[in-house]
Amino acid sequence: MNHETATQVVDFSASINPLGPPQSAIASLKAGIVELNHYPNPDYPQFRLGVANHHHLDEKYILPSNGAAELLTWIAWECHELEGVLLPSPCFADYKRALKTFGVKYQFYPLDDLDKGINSPQSSRLAILINNPHNPTGKLWTRLSLQPYLEKFALVIVDEAFMDFLPPQNQESLIDFIKDYDNLVILRSLTKFYSLPGLRIGYGISNPQTIAKWQKWRDPWSVNSLAEIAAVACLQDKAFQEKTWQWLPPTRESLKQGLDNIEFLQVLPSQSNFLLVKTQIPSTQLQLRLLRQKQILIRDCVSFPELGEKYFRVAVKTHIDNQKLLDELNKLSKAIVENQEWLS
Amino acid sequence: MNHETATQVVDFSASINPLGPPQSAIASLKAGIVELNHYPNPDYPQFRLGVANHHHLDEKYILPSNGAAELLTWIAWECHELEGVLLPSPCFADYKRALKTFGVKYQFYPLDDLDKGINSPQSSRLAILINNPHNPTGKLWTRLSLQPYLEKFALVIVDEAFMDFLPPQNQESLIDFIKDYDNLVILRSLTKFYSLPGLRIGYGISNPQTIAKWQKWRDPWSVNSLAEIAAVACLQDKAFQEKTWQWLPPTRESLKQGLDNIEFLQVLPSQSNFLLVKTQIPSTQLQLRLLRQKQILIRDCVSFPELGEKYFRVAVKTHIDNQKLLDELNKLSKAIVENQEWLS
Repeated sequence: MNHETATQVVDFSASINPLGPPQSAIASLKAGIVELNHYPNPDYPQFRLGVANHHHLDEKYILPSNGAAELLTWIAWECHELEGVLLPSPCFADYKRALKTFGVKYQFYPLDDLDKGINSPQSSRLAILINNPHNPTGKLWTRLSLQPYLEKFALVIVDEAFMDFLPPQNQESLIDFIKDYDNLVILRSLTKFYSLPGLRIGYGISNPQTIAKWQKWRDPWSVNSLAEIAAVACLQDKAFQEKTWQWLPPTRESLKQGLDNIEFLQVLPSQSNFLLVKTQIPSTQLQLRLLRQKQILIRDCVSFPELGEKYFRVAVKTHIDNQKLLDELNKLSKAIVENQEWLS
Repeated sequence: MNHETATQVVDFSASINPLGPPQSAIASLKAGIVELNHYPNPDYPQFRLGVANHHHLDEKYILPSNGAAELLTWIAWECHELEGVLLPSPCFADYKRALKTFGVKYQFYPLDDLDKGINSPQSSRLAILINNPHNPTGKLWTRLSLQPYLEKFALVIVDEAFMDFLPPQNQESLIDFIKDYDNLVILRSLTKFYSLPGLRIGYGISNPQTIAKWQKWRDPWSVNSLAEIAAVACLQDKAFQEKTWQWLPPTRESLKQGLDNIEFLQVLPSQSNFLLVKTQIPSTQLQLRLLRQKQILIRDCVSFPELGEKYFRVAVKTHIDNQKLLDELNKLSKAIVENQEWLS
């Protein structure tokens, strides 16, 4: 739905940093167009080096990818010899897509169980997928609370697509464990933080043997040349990173309070750049009304079947855009109290 | 090797149209950078429509892809339930990569057998991959000579990555058969003809059920937004297409004659934008010499094990570049006759 209407609407449905893309990336992209008449180097040395420097890791631990979604395909193929994969509930629909493609079995675990501790007699023959911070709740687990899973499961896949929205001192990435656990795979994305979802830029981090194996499995030129160029520029842009880390916490808090003040809404605590909101009005009705009346697009949770009509998700956007959303929801709330029109 | 040196050398190793990229594509790419903060639409409606119009086909027969190489992955997965795949010998190394990933068995057939007729008692449980025009020989088969394979094999995959270098009246595409044979898959590329290998633009053509199935298998955003934008611009640029069709045949003929006049070389007839050349001097030695002395890069045939040191491949480039290659090879030829230096 965001596709056709993306240029006109105020889009809260995709969790993209409203401060980006960084000017440094735009400039590098413009300069990079003349290089498109060469094939990319299948080793993507500049991309790898940029990520290696960013995380203080050797390049052989890193696999640049055509968005994180490409890696979900290869992770799923990696899992096809295991007995199955445990997925968080609710979770990003593309996890299921990748596993279904290769007929890999999966089961869901309730989010709370990750705190309590998930034990299974089969865990040494299972993979577990953890999404930290979690989409769509925004919940963050500490790295130490997740470490026990590395001891138990055959494979631990941690999707950290939104981790970079936390300032470095608050991040709970499992990257520090990468040299100690060969069964750890971390997914990262440059799409959300740097506002470049159209370009497809992600990377995987795992032990060098796994990385080399996946590189042989996949097609040699899966990452386009402009994605490599932009990745290098983005990772070097410390000013943009700092600006985002300054902007997000107060803006998120202000949006959260504004939403919580609305009678029929209740917001879950979030450490990421989006908020999951419980609503007494069915979310698809709310979505339609906001879109028709104010060209505001919120994300219904239909792709998260456990949430359904009771929840919607909004990105944290600029203060002006957030205020537009709050104003319209407040108007609705008032209309409900006065007319009962939405309580049917 | 072409990657590190691409900007300095005269690169005959990648078979890319030297007249491109078209200015229309460059302009659309520059304008498209501002759209990168939106996710691509997973249906890629503009790309699909552009291809549909180009081939006078319904959009549901078309799957835009992240280069043709992405589709080799899904074709290989499609083949995993068959008994195996017949591949031409020699062939593009990425065919083998994709099949090995999923443990799909393959066997080779000599190119000449495609003319004689390949029969196998197992053919109804096998796929056959045909590359037309063939890389690296440049050989073209007529569509009527290939039609019998559609009757015999479980799946017929025709890689037509270089077909668009032939003017429409000379093309031998199997697209006309697509509605009659559900077991036909055609691969096309926009990379070579429009000189945009860095952007990753290809597409597959098959029956709507297969296309819909692959769309579900793969990640939803595998094609970047700029690839979609450029694809639309390229397919509409009739002037660029016409210019390429005017340029290629006489330029190829002139390069072929020049190479054939050199004592130690013999050129195979080609209908594409590259020439396969048999050499009495080992091709890697020749490659090194040309690169060191004149920064000319030819393609050795090491990735085609059947050809090895006895062959090299060159793209047809501009007349000036072709002449540089001929001049240097003629100098070498003279040195050989005079000094016998290369005949050891």
